[in-house]
Amino acid sequence: MRTIDWVDGAVEIIDQTVLPGEVKILRLRTVPELVAAIQSLAVRGAPALGVAGAFGVALAARVHADDPVARDEAVQRVENARPTAVNLARGARRAAGLLAQGAAAVLEEAFRVRDEEIAASEAMAVRGADLMVELCGARPRLLTHCNTGGLAAVTVGTALGVVHELHQRGQLAGVVASETRPLLQGARLTSWELTRWGIEHRVAVDSAGPFLMARGEVDAVILGADRICANGDVINKIGTYSHALGARRAGLPFVVVAPESTVDLETASGDDVTIEDRGSAEVTPWAPAANPAFDVTPHDLVTAIVTDHRVIRHDRGDRV
Amino acid sequence: MRTIDWVDGAVEIIDQTVLPGEVKILRLRTVPELVAAIQSLAVRGAPALGVAGAFGVALAARVHADDPVARDEAVQRVENARPTAVNLARGARRAAGLLAQGAAAVLEEAFRVRDEEIAASEAMAVRGADLMVELCGARPRLLTHCNTGGLAAVTVGTALGVVHELHQRGQLAGVVASETRPLLQGARLTSWELTRWGIEHRVAVDSAGPFLMARGEVDAVILGADRICANGDVINKIGTYSHALGARRAGLPFVVVAPESTVDLETASGDDVTIEDRGSAEVTPWAPAANPAFDVTPHDLVTAIVTDHRVIRHDRGDRV
Repeated sequence: MRTIDWVDGAVEIIDQTVLPGEVKILRLRTVPELVAAIQSLAVRGAPALGVAGAFGVALAARVHADDPVARDEAVQRVENARPTAVNLARGARRAAGLLAQGAAAVLEEAFRVRDEEIAASEAMAVRGADLMVELCGARPRLLTHCNTGGLAAVTVGTALGVVHELHQRGQLAGVVASETRPLLQGARLTSWELTRWGIEHRVAVDSAGPFLMARGEVDAVILGADRICANGDVINKIGTYSHALGARRAGLPFVVVAPESTVDLETASGDDVTIEDRGSAEVTPWAPAANPAFDVTPHDLVTAIVTDHRVIRHDRGDRV
Repeated sequence: MRTIDWVDGAVEIIDQTVLPGEVKILRLRTVPELVAAIQSLAVRGAPALGVAGAFGVALAARVHADDPVARDEAVQRVENARPTAVNLARGARRAAGLLAQGAAAVLEEAFRVRDEEIAASEAMAVRGADLMVELCGARPRLLTHCNTGGLAAVTVGTALGVVHELHQRGQLAGVVASETRPLLQGARLTSWELTRWGIEHRVAVDSAGPFLMARGEVDAVILGADRICANGDVINKIGTYSHALGARRAGLPFVVVAPESTVDLETASGDDVTIEDRGSAEVTPWAPAANPAFDVTPHDLVTAIVTDHRVIRHDRGDRV
């Protein structure tokens, strides 16, 4: 199963807004359709957004082959559909680099972006599983947040790919999926993927994470990233930071798994990142809301970052 | 408005499960009706539960006047309806101490429990408002969690009573109400009370609390308690502990407001408290859940505790 792919001249995605009740394929033929799907979170997750960005430019190149002005405007709209994950703009720019060579070349580059994300998932799963056993001993009980599975990353996933790999090896003793308000990516998407993989798990409200750690029900936290800054600060789904505080207080490893395409050396620290605010309606119908979609976890709270190329052990003084 | 009262031989409560959509009065004529209302959280909040416990015993004394065995069994059911807040059992036992003198004496004691909680709210509001200005300077922006208003405490409330008092004094610059999953006491009840009082506020998902503190949008955290242990550990709604971790990291005061009836010197520390687990259904229909309804905030994370009699400044070495 691929979360996102190019099929017969259009982008096809699994509509993540209606899971787990319904498994629905959306076929996106135009840039406005793709941008709307990105903004409604029908497709989400940093690696998947990188692929969406590249395919979006391929759509623009195809639809506006005879109108470079309209085409470049469409490319801009793809690149700016959401601000926080670096992968979206990066995937879009990579494909856009081939615009001068025509729509076919752009599409080929988009396929490369997709295939690299698939390969990255597999590499992270193996490297991450090795690290978790090294940090926690055999059969850790893990807490994860948001969704970092195949839905977020074309196929296997980032942090959830590691969970899957540990399960395959018989080295996983339990999973807590933090529900991830306001949009419940944990309760809806992660729980759905774990169930499909036959992995027993429990869902918990986000604010229970630190207490479950303090009570000794979790051996480590493992989750993804939307952007990793040059100083090692991690931008990820809102709630990541409070799990990091809980892990630090409980003395547990806090591990981030993300492909190199998420590492952004041009952004010095979390202070420099635009945090998307998604407005009140997602949170409550009854009052105005503060709804930052992401937060910043300072690098000193991050034990290690696993990418497809390396393990960065903050706890041993490694730097991004 | 009183959340809970004795009216013409029965206990009347505002049904907190249907707010803010509907303001509905439930009339509870029997102990099983009262116990069901406590367990479904139609009435909740530590001080209100103390009053419910006392009125519950008054109901038992009235209904089972001629059958001491049935009466004592009913008293036990009231006392044990929920395990975590000390006030429930304490209110029930206080009223039960008068059982030998007949139903009228029991009811009089229950009225005293009610009136003391009302007086305690007023005392905490003044003392707490003075403390917040001392700790934060004039016009603090406060984050609160769960519901600690009139709904939780017969009339004014505990922590939310302090918020109300600051507003009345013109010394409040903003409120963030943490939504409080899984049952949304913050988004449903606190937001409803703040709106009735004309206090502008924003709701946020629970896991955003620590990030809003880190980003400088909050000057202090103020919330209630279901039990305060002899060593100063605070048992309160799940999510309290993660807000405390956020406040500590951001260097913000973390203030607990609760009546003396919540202080339990017979419980040494948070390790000795039974934490109610409310099962999966409240959290998600899609998977098993871990659902601790409360958590333990270690005393070293609590700046101060405000009761109706005193301010316990942990930050200055005071002890409960």
